[in-house]
Amino acid sequence: MTGNDTTDRLPAKLEAALAFDDRGLVPAVAQQHDSGEVLMMAWMNRAAIAETLATGRVCYWSRSRERLWRKGERSGQVQQLVELCVDCDGDTLLLKVDQTGVACHTGRRSCFFRSWHDGRLDETQTVEVDPAKLYGEDG
Amino acid sequence: MTGNDTTDRLPAKLEAALAFDDRGLVPAVAQQHDSGEVLMMAWMNRAAIAETLATGRVCYWSRSRERLWRKGERSGQVQQLVELCVDCDGDTLLLKVDQTGVACHTGRRSCFFRSWHDGRLDETQTVEVDPAKLYGEDG
Repeated sequence: MTGNDTTDRLPAKLEAALAFDDRGLVPAVAQQHDSGEVLMMAWMNRAAIAETLATGRVCYWSRSRERLWRKGERSGQVQQLVELCVDCDGDTLLLKVDQTGVACHTGRRSCFFRSWHDGRLDETQTVEVDPAKLYGEDG
Repeated sequence: MTGNDTTDRLPAKLEAALAFDDRGLVPAVAQQHDSGEVLMMAWMNRAAIAETLATGRVCYWSRSRERLWRKGERSGQVQQLVELCVDCDGDTLLLKVDQTGVACHTGRRSCFFRSWHDGRLDETQTVEVDPAKLYGEDG
């Protein structure tokens, strides 16, 4: 699969196991396969899942941009798929991945870098990469 | 907080950090705090979050039953909250929990017990507790 070729077709056994929502999406949790760190949550449609399985590189569906979002396409912070897991109801995916660099657009390793303690949100991770370097100075 | 007392009020700093969807919900990923295992994904509204913070026991919002779902209320398989994390966009929560027994209604430790390999879904976890014992023979 190259360029903009996409397909909405999933293998029949996978299609049968999945319960997409009324927008044709399922939430997908990305976890670093060896450390167990939860990196992010994003959404996938059939085309994103099909591309991810075909290429081994994780592709989501961007709800805000309404297009396929090949994770790391601008920042280089790609995710290689190690394992795709389906939950009991088929309405959530767990992607065990190997994350290059940082998962979060803020330059932190994980998007879950804020923790609620004693009435305030504390930041629990530092910025590892300057976002300006990830995305260029044009934002 | 006891019985059916509920509040939709969140601490102001938490409310300001969260972006609920148009149903007033955010997805919440539950992770075993020490092993790193991802256990399940469910949904929370303001009342579920408020109760979870007040009691230390995780409470979700059941979309199918349209009511608060105190995890383990029937099965006894409760989740104690260890840490509540908020993602960069404020639209997903990561709950680090201490899971009693099994998280999945099928009697498996995690809901993500199916893994896609070589064109089929393999079960990667065994049933640890008979669901009939979790929920009684009336289902």
